Amino acid sequence: MTALPRAHDPASATLLDRYAAVRRQTLALAAPLSPEDCVVQSMPDASPAKWHLAHTTWFFETFVLAPHVAGYTPFREPYRVLFNSYYVAVGDRHPRPERGLLTRPTLREVQAYRQYVDGAMQALLETGRGTALRDTVELGLQHEQQHQELVVTDVKHLLSRNPLAPVYRARWPLLAVASRATGWIAHPGGIVDIGHGSGGFAFDNEGPRHRALLAPHAIATHPVTNGEYRAFIADGGYRRPDLWCSLGWDTVVAHGWEAPLYWRRRDGDWRTFTLYGEVDVDDDTPVAHVSWFEADAYARWAGARLPTEFEWEALAAGQRVDGNFADGGALHPLPAPAAAPGAPAQLFGDVWEWTASAYAPYPGFRTAPGAIGEYNGKFMCNQYVLRGGSCATPRGHVRATYRNFFPPEARWQFSGIRLASDA
Amino acid sequence: MTALPRAHDPASATLLDRYAAVRRQTLALAAPLSPEDCVVQSMPDASPAKWHLAHTTWFFETFVLAPHVAGYTPFREPYRVLFNSYYVAVGDRHPRPERGLLTRPTLREVQAYRQYVDGAMQALLETGRGTALRDTVELGLQHEQQHQELVVTDVKHLLSRNPLAPVYRARWPLLAVASRATGWIAHPGGIVDIGHGSGGFAFDNEGPRHRALLAPHAIATHPVTNGEYRAFIADGGYRRPDLWCSLGWDTVVAHGWEAPLYWRRRDGDWRTFTLYGEVDVDDDTPVAHVSWFEADAYARWAGARLPTEFEWEALAAGQRVDGNFADGGALHPLPAPAAAPGAPAQLFGDVWEWTASAYAPYPGFRTAPGAIGEYNGKFMCNQYVLRGGSCATPRGHVRATYRNFFPPEARWQFSGIRLASDA
Amino acid sequence: MTALPRAHDPASATLLDRYAAVRRQTLALAAPLSPEDCVVQSMPDASPAKWHLAHTTWFFETFVLAPHVAGYTPFREPYRVLFNSYYVAVGDRHPRPERGLLTRPTLREVQAYRQYVDGAMQALLETGRGTALRDTVELGLQHEQQHQELVVTDVKHLLSRNPLAPVYRARWPLLAVASRATGWIAHPGGIVDIGHGSGGFAFDNEGPRHRALLAPHAIATHPVTNGEYRAFIADGGYRRPDLWCSLGWDTVVAHGWEAPLYWRRRDGDWRTFTLYGEVDVDDDTPVAHVSWFEADAYARWAGARLPTEFEWEALAAGQRVDGNFADGGALHPLPAPAAAPGAPAQLFGDVWEWTASAYAPYPGFRTAPGAIGEYNGKFMCNQYVLRGGSCATPRGHVRATYRNFFPPEARWQFSGIRLASDA
Amino acid sequence: MTALPRAHDPASATLLDRYAAVRRQTLALAAPLSPEDCVVQSMPDASPAKWHLAHTTWFFETFVLAPHVAGYTPFREPYRVLFNSYYVAVGDRHPRPERGLLTRPTLREVQAYRQYVDGAMQALLETGRGTALRDTVELGLQHEQQHQELVVTDVKHLLSRNPLAPVYRARWPLLAVASRATGWIAHPGGIVDIGHGSGGFAFDNEGPRHRALLAPHAIATHPVTNGEYRAFIADGGYRRPDLWCSLGWDTVVAHGWEAPLYWRRRDGDWRTFTLYGEVDVDDDTPVAHVSWFEADAYARWAGARLPTEFEWEALAAGQRVDGNFADGGALHPLPAPAAAPGAPAQLFGDVWEWTASAYAPYPGFRTAPGAIGEYNGKFMCNQYVLRGGSCATPRGHVRATYRNFFPPEARWQFSGIRLASDA
Repeated sequence: MTALPRAHDPASATLLDRYAAVRRQTLALAAPLSPEDCVVQSMPDASPAKWHLAHTTWFFETFVLAPHVAGYTPFREPYRVLFNSYYVAVGDRHPRPERGLLTRPTLREVQAYRQYVDGAMQALLETGRGTALRDTVELGLQHEQQHQELVVTDVKHLLSRNPLAPVYRARWPLLAVASRATGWIAHPGGIVDIGHGSGGFAFDNEGPRHRALLAPHAIATHPVTNGEYRAFIADGGYRRPDLWCSLGWDTVVAHGWEAPLYWRRRDGDWRTFTLYGEVDVDDDTPVAHVSWFEADAYARWAGARLPTEFEWEALAAGQRVDGNFADGGALHPLPAPAAAPGAPAQLFGDVWEWTASAYAPYPGFRTAPGAIGEYNGKFMCNQYVLRGGSCATPRGHVRATYRNFFPPEARWQFSGIRLASDA
Repeated sequence: MTALPRAHDPASATLLDRYAAVRRQTLALAAPLSPEDCVVQSMPDASPAKWHLAHTTWFFETFVLAPHVAGYTPFREPYRVLFNSYYVAVGDRHPRPERGLLTRPTLREVQAYRQYVDGAMQALLETGRGTALRDTVELGLQHEQQHQELVVTDVKHLLSRNPLAPVYRARWPLLAVASRATGWIAHPGGIVDIGHGSGGFAFDNEGPRHRALLAPHAIATHPVTNGEYRAFIADGGYRRPDLWCSLGWDTVVAHGWEAPLYWRRRDGDWRTFTLYGEVDVDDDTPVAHVSWFEADAYARWAGARLPTEFEWEALAAGQRVDGNFADGGALHPLPAPAAAPGAPAQLFGDVWEWTASAYAPYPGFRTAPGAIGEYNGKFMCNQYVLRGGSCATPRGHVRATYRNFFPPEARWQFSGIRLASDA
Repeated sequence: MTALPRAHDPASATLLDRYAAVRRQTLALAAPLSPEDCVVQSMPDASPAKWHLAHTTWFFETFVLAPHVAGYTPFREPYRVLFNSYYVAVGDRHPRPERGLLTRPTLREVQAYRQYVDGAMQALLETGRGTALRDTVELGLQHEQQHQELVVTDVKHLLSRNPLAPVYRARWPLLAVASRATGWIAHPGGIVDIGHGSGGFAFDNEGPRHRALLAPHAIATHPVTNGEYRAFIADGGYRRPDLWCSLGWDTVVAHGWEAPLYWRRRDGDWRTFTLYGEVDVDDDTPVAHVSWFEADAYARWAGARLPTEFEWEALAAGQRVDGNFADGGALHPLPAPAAAPGAPAQLFGDVWEWTASAYAPYPGFRTAPGAIGEYNGKFMCNQYVLRGGSCATPRGHVRATYRNFFPPEARWQFSGIRLASDA
Repeated sequence: MTALPRAHDPASATLLDRYAAVRRQTLALAAPLSPEDCVVQSMPDASPAKWHLAHTTWFFETFVLAPHVAGYTPFREPYRVLFNSYYVAVGDRHPRPERGLLTRPTLREVQAYRQYVDGAMQALLETGRGTALRDTVELGLQHEQQHQELVVTDVKHLLSRNPLAPVYRARWPLLAVASRATGWIAHPGGIVDIGHGSGGFAFDNEGPRHRALLAPHAIATHPVTNGEYRAFIADGGYRRPDLWCSLGWDTVVAHGWEAPLYWRRRDGDWRTFTLYGEVDVDDDTPVAHVSWFEADAYARWAGARLPTEFEWEALAAGQRVDGNFADGGALHPLPAPAAAPGAPAQLFGDVWEWTASAYAPYPGFRTAPGAIGEYNGKFMCNQYVLRGGSCATPRGHVRATYRNFFPPEARWQFSGIRLASDA
């Protein structure tokens, strides 16, 4: 794409490699999908896969190429509006619930858009420009990884709405047998350091690093399993208002919830829709696709509570960030592997873990100026923090300080439960 | 496709030819569409093109092949539910507003479904089976022609929702210049015969043939044009509640209507979205995409009224069924050709003409037994009759007795206005 | 109330007496109600009794006193907007669904408003002014009688929403025993005269008188009873989509209808809420509070159909306008009295009878100029005609040509069913 | 009410006196209302005054008399369901949005209900029963005081919906002139004690008392005034999405907000609806009737933030609980009185102050068993904490640890803003 001599700055080379790898991975996730699968929007919360492919590209075009490459020509001018998500400062946006109406550009044209931008990005990165640019590129890659997870969860939701129960992947990954005994890990309480410090990428909402005071408490070694959750259902969990917060109970009644999203009663037993089609509910696997309402109600039923995000982070701070991530290819939570006694299992990967903490700014939090500043701060209302990543999260994307957030009724992410209790 | 000796019954041969021609035409209408264009549903009233392709095929499989071919194997068992539209007697149906969620089967698979059924139909028709079967095949073809019109109007709506204003056809058909002077054709009133008599196909709702008493009246020689309608708008037509029926005015206010569907104000003038993209509004062309509410209000503003469907049919009874139909390829209303003085112009084709008549059964109307009987009768409530066919109607599909019907707020068909007045 | 010399024009005297009688009757209907009962609006379709008391008074102030009495001072200026119903030409209106928010003026103040206007009307009528004025006064009285019926039906709906099942009247009126055998009255068909001719008051929608052509048919001697309707329910009437028009079935499913409005299943049997509280469903009483959808479905189930409004009027033309009206005090349909063989029973009073006719203008219909012209014409869309009056209609208010109209889903009027069939 | 010898237990006497005083005060607040004013529900969030009168009485009957008085006969059996608010454990409830349909029992009957229960309560309290009972009575009185505030705010909302702008009180209370200069009160940060300790009544959500870690910060001496808020509006505050959280901006757009609730633009200036009718907006008065969204956006515009509830409580801990409460009779915020330099003004009374804190349980929080336990805990989701009481709060009802809570969009309470900033 260019005959210019390559830059020899090793960091540039690394960033370029990383750029290529992340971008390639997005395409790989969309590979099993037909053009039809890529265009439809199954609910306002979700977006078409084609839109994700385009929007992540738009991010690089808007925040990297347009401001940093003199004379850059946008691939198509109208894409500026069409593929803006919510960056008000960038200008108009196509309405979110109408993303599924965009049959044009076609998937093929969006793929050409990606190639065009990738070419320009490669040329730019090879020049080895300064740190500010590199920070924005890194943000764009982290952003793309977030959308990779959404490609998986949005496609799962779409396919689940089809009576034919189509399959995204063919070979069922559950081979392991769990050998686990859930225990508790106690914490004496006291002041801990919370939030991202120096070193490595982090989103703005992970800082500033600050001190928090914990009460004595304990956290479960394992996430709650389908088998444990099945007992909650069998005990009338979805029919007992005393277990639910008021808003949660209203939601249960309004939507007729009686199990996690994707669970279906068949001949008196539970089946569940997965990216591999409909399968039996496996009792040893962490429960997924529950809302905060359900996590909170389950915890109350179990005589426990959800951990605060600070308690969770204090536990995670000393742990290695490893687990069942998207790169492993399962794209489904797996039964617990053997773990050292008293050590947390499945803290990272498998399922995002709802915390008791409403999503709020850390003391001293300031949003960045301009459109980039709209990244996280504006969502700090009526959402709850989830921690730890899931089986749909790209490896390397999460860390102990990472704060994901969703409204308490959201269920289409791989969201699960880890219990805590007062000491 | 078969080695059996051909039937030599000429009528069979004709029906088979006709079958092939109608089916081919449906594919031709979908040819300019991408797989993405074919899967999306742009509003609950509309259906994806892929669904039309499949549902018309389902009709032949359900009502012809399954009952008449011993040992017929359906192409795919779940299609029975998936592509049923509203035939309750046939069994479950996939919910209409969720037709756009069916990314699978893909367009390619639906095309294979068509081929499979076409093969079986050809084999069946070559055997030259009896009259009852032939009547059902004819109904299936008429049914498919109705869906051909919907393919055109539903795709137009879908493309209109895309800010890129995509083009279904490239070459703009408006070359003719109108040379017209609207006049009135008087009728003295009296008893007339209404409805389909003997000879040729007709839908059940066109009979029984019966007598109706007309008051003396007159009907306009031409449909209302864009230029005339523009004057209505300029005179505050959309801001004067006295011109509208109560429900119509509520609709104007609720949706902020200020012009026909697809009209867009650009720099103080009107443009309109067409299957050829966005173009200037042409004053000599019949106005299209107006609701019954708008037709009724326009007529009141013009000091006239809409014709009853009986008045319309009395006028049409003596006329040749000719005009700007889908086969002509314009897929857009055209300016009026020269017409004999005092003769009606554009009575057939161009635009469906709203009548003052609520859609109701004719005296003695009975629905056929079984699922086929659900064809027309069950919609006889809160709809109005339209007459004459449009530029999206297949030639040969309409006749003087043909009754189309839509709710008074519907605008996405090529629906227009012809005035009447009391003598 | 005035020392002016009385007019001696006997017609004036009669109109004044009639004015006083009608106005008194409205107050009598509201007498059993508490101030609380009079202010609440139980659904958007209904209005508070206080609003009816005020709006009928507003009609006289707006259309009689203000234009005809020099120097007339309105009782309270803001009432002009507050108590306008839908007369757009008069100016702004308080939104219909917010009528129940008007706790002020209090019931007492509205009663004072009535007295003030009644005083001014009395003074005006005593002067014996010209015919045009008298026509408007008569329209105002007919208008008030229509609202008297609404006071009854709206209060019934309000009280039905109270779990305490409050009683509007104490003594249950059903003493008669029915002695009936339903038969059919045949009509040979042919041209009949329809609509109001000369002589006496009629609403604009009852004219112009014109000719209509009837097909041979027969009409039932009696309205359908609760007992007959109970059989329809028992036969699965509310669970068989083939009996319903498409829109009707959607309504049944959306609202979970399984019986007429006010019917309640108690211990396996049907009870119904009345103005006398909750009582057993009486099998000999005409069924009431059914929608057009239910009337149409019942008729289909019974192998019959609804009469057109022209067929109904042809039957009624020769009959005496007598029956169970509001003045009789029952305020509930009653079992059929003995009737001459082959003569229609309960044609007037008891229940309004749904017809098959969509509400539309008669040939040559013109609305009156100005606000008064908004009376009836603007509602001629998506409504059906009912004929004959009910037990809540004031005696003397209806006649053979009277056209009431409601949307096909409306059930809170005393609306019932009389069958017809093709000859 | 009774001739029995009075109990001589001084504590009993005190509680009895207090009971009588609180109950009397509720009636006094309803005294200016007509029966019509007392029955209507102006929005689902609000309740009719009559319902408040009955529900507070229901609390004593259900939680005190029924379990503690042998052979107690309820006043009316159906009231058990009718006047239950949300206590699921008590049994069925009448649906909240339908409280306004209950025209019966009338206001008069509800007053009789109050007298009946008051008589039984007096007899019970004179017997001087044990502590558990006394705790429940105290809870009932605190509960009734909360509803006193709602009577005021719900009636204000109801009257505001009436175009006649009716007056609840006649004499306008704003006589004082503010003499203020807003300053900041700094706090060095560190661990503070939060929540109710021993002594005196407190709600369950105020405990357990625990330690919290504060960052260094400062809090404004005064709440934000109308004049300051007017500058925010003039600066385009309601048109700049960058100032709002995402959900807040959606709300602004959806409802067309452009000022606090009750503000109305008249001839280019702002007026506001009060319990004294419509008046000019007074610049020296604390702004009221703003949502959390508006408080948060205003703070961002002002370069500040909202205080956390812990920061607020740390400031309030040392202050005397005094201010403009309901007993003062203003029922409207007042301009700031002179205050000592560096001391907080209007911390209690005038307006509830939104905090940055989502409403959540304190560490170790447990709900009480049974229906009483439903009091506060079940609302701990998607709500924000407000502190300090308002001009509609009964004196003596609030304290430094008191936690009020409302969803972020709620505006019909007297809710205002106090700024904070990072040190």
